[in-house]
Amino acid sequence: MANITVLGSGMVGRAMALDLAKKHRVTAADISEDALQRLAAVNSGIRTTVADLRQESEIKKLVSDADVVVGSVPGFMGFEMMRQVIDAGKNIVDISFYPENPFALDALARQRNVIAIMDMGVAPGISNLLLGYHHKQHKVLSFECLVGGLPAERRYPFEYKAPFSAIDVIEEYLRPARFVVNGKQVVKPALSDPELIDFPGIGTLEAFNSDGLRSLVETIPVADMIERTLRYPGHIALMRAFREAGFFSKEDLLVSGVKLEPIDCTSKLLFEQWRLGDHEEEFTVMRLRIVVGHDGGTKTLEYFLLDRFDKATATSSMARTTGYTCTAGVELILEGKYNRPGISPPEFIGEDEACVQFVMNYLRERGVKYQFTESDSNPG
Amino acid sequence: MANITVLGSGMVGRAMALDLAKKHRVTAADISEDALQRLAAVNSGIRTTVADLRQESEIKKLVSDADVVVGSVPGFMGFEMMRQVIDAGKNIVDISFYPENPFALDALARQRNVIAIMDMGVAPGISNLLLGYHHKQHKVLSFECLVGGLPAERRYPFEYKAPFSAIDVIEEYLRPARFVVNGKQVVKPALSDPELIDFPGIGTLEAFNSDGLRSLVETIPVADMIERTLRYPGHIALMRAFREAGFFSKEDLLVSGVKLEPIDCTSKLLFEQWRLGDHEEEFTVMRLRIVVGHDGGTKTLEYFLLDRFDKATATSSMARTTGYTCTAGVELILEGKYNRPGISPPEFIGEDEACVQFVMNYLRERGVKYQFTESDSNPG
Repeated sequence: MANITVLGSGMVGRAMALDLAKKHRVTAADISEDALQRLAAVNSGIRTTVADLRQESEIKKLVSDADVVVGSVPGFMGFEMMRQVIDAGKNIVDISFYPENPFALDALARQRNVIAIMDMGVAPGISNLLLGYHHKQHKVLSFECLVGGLPAERRYPFEYKAPFSAIDVIEEYLRPARFVVNGKQVVKPALSDPELIDFPGIGTLEAFNSDGLRSLVETIPVADMIERTLRYPGHIALMRAFREAGFFSKEDLLVSGVKLEPIDCTSKLLFEQWRLGDHEEEFTVMRLRIVVGHDGGTKTLEYFLLDRFDKATATSSMARTTGYTCTAGVELILEGKYNRPGISPPEFIGEDEACVQFVMNYLRERGVKYQFTESDSNPG
Repeated sequence: MANITVLGSGMVGRAMALDLAKKHRVTAADISEDALQRLAAVNSGIRTTVADLRQESEIKKLVSDADVVVGSVPGFMGFEMMRQVIDAGKNIVDISFYPENPFALDALARQRNVIAIMDMGVAPGISNLLLGYHHKQHKVLSFECLVGGLPAERRYPFEYKAPFSAIDVIEEYLRPARFVVNGKQVVKPALSDPELIDFPGIGTLEAFNSDGLRSLVETIPVADMIERTLRYPGHIALMRAFREAGFFSKEDLLVSGVKLEPIDCTSKLLFEQWRLGDHEEEFTVMRLRIVVGHDGGTKTLEYFLLDRFDKATATSSMARTTGYTCTAGVELILEGKYNRPGISPPEFIGEDEACVQFVMNYLRERGVKYQFTESDSNPG
């Protein structure tokens, strides 16, 4: 039994605290007393602390007796939080998905002899882990990741609910997408190259370029790599219209005598539209295609995930698929299975087959099941 | 040669002043000195006066020597302007299209012995005139008016340019549409019942219910009457999404600590998107279908208008089709052809065949040509 501090108790943080509390002493911290009370109501063994995690002193205090820290704060707070945890000499597994470069903390982490696993969710997360695994095993020729979290009920006009804040989703629709074509980094606008793709059990979704490769662009030398996000058909067209018409603009606009950034008005309205209810059914879908060299030819390895809201525990699929990957990372550290000091993106963990099997088993035990198939790329 | 005062010198007011100045002494008034200077640059014979037409004293002064006044101010100023002109004992032909009920001014107009023609544009305007005409001649069974003003160049994402302010267009997308079915008034939401319809010379457009029958609902007892507005396909879906997501809302929203109505932010952004350039080619399309009893059966009378931007004079189609109908109304009064005191919607003028022919000839001379066809409704 170890001491774990979970920083941030939102939808995913909450699921992680409950998962870890089955075996460990868990402290959950959040600025929202309400979120913490609802957590304690489910498991009174979890210690809860109301804390403003933007305060350096708060974090140092909260992690002082932790064996491993879990980071699940909003993206804009993530980097600074992680820096402080590392500086305090504490191991951390993080899913805050902050925009800064985590490797900027690598030297500090190695100096403090800290294991710091970043982006340990679904995508980024499992996608990196599995690419790292196959990159170690084979000659990987190309990598494609399609991923989306969507509500079961498709409601006009957006057919979308955000498991995190609307502004973070809009940022995804603004940030140019980086991917790798023929060994060269390529940048395209977000929401570009929409494509309709059928998925078993779901129907037709629409994929668009998103900036999701993150560390892979630097760590894995594969000639063709792309990540694309999935939505119900039509959502992308609508979001492009909003963007092109200036509704996501960050330039000051004078409205009724007041200066404001249109994106602030837009995200406020979309926040209402996109709020995911506590008991609202949603699912996570991911399809990885990894083409590898094989016997002088090639074969395609495919991982497919379709994970649904868990009605029994009212745990969202997004929380399960992201959160349990992260808690699997916590166990890897606690059980001494992964011990590389410094910043580790999941592809580093993927180099160790035992670690990969541990994580996939850990997820399977919690009902998060990846289907693996392989086929010759050019059969016949 | 008569004295005419044109109140409001926007796109349409300007075209009317220039048309009337060929025969008459014209005074053009507007709050924009720039608009007036550009008008005087084309015809220095037009007297221009910068004036705030929301000031009662200004209007009284401006119309004091007028034989007929032309009203072409923004909708929100229209009713009060018209009241003042009538109160001053001056005849008026108006295209301000204000939301208030013009018949509220009928008693005053009759008392002052004033001829006050309202809504003398295309639709409302010619549509009313022609329905009034056929209603006098035949038993009219149904009336359908499809009308739109559109840019020649279809630009993503709206494929629309507004010949008047964005806020007035948005109001059209909000105001419930009233029409008549089976002798009963029916109300449906704006933008409802989208339908794709092909037009010769244009291609496929999309029609939606709009609140354009106006006076006809009260004045003409026809069992089935509807007006629908035309846009390029897709525009309606986009506008419905904006509306349903709250972007046209007039309820206060707290954005970055400031209270504002989302519609104000939206109309500011759309104003930029929808601004019709001075030399931007656009067209007006209208299709009227009037089904009348005939020989125990029925026949369908159709009027079709496709009028384009006039490159030679850089006069927009919207200004030509709306403005020249209004100036035809001015001539009707000046030539003593129409002299009914009180408020007259165009359907009243339509009862007089000579007036209808005068107006249609007047338009034809200016290149605005309605094609008339008639056919048995159930041929064979």
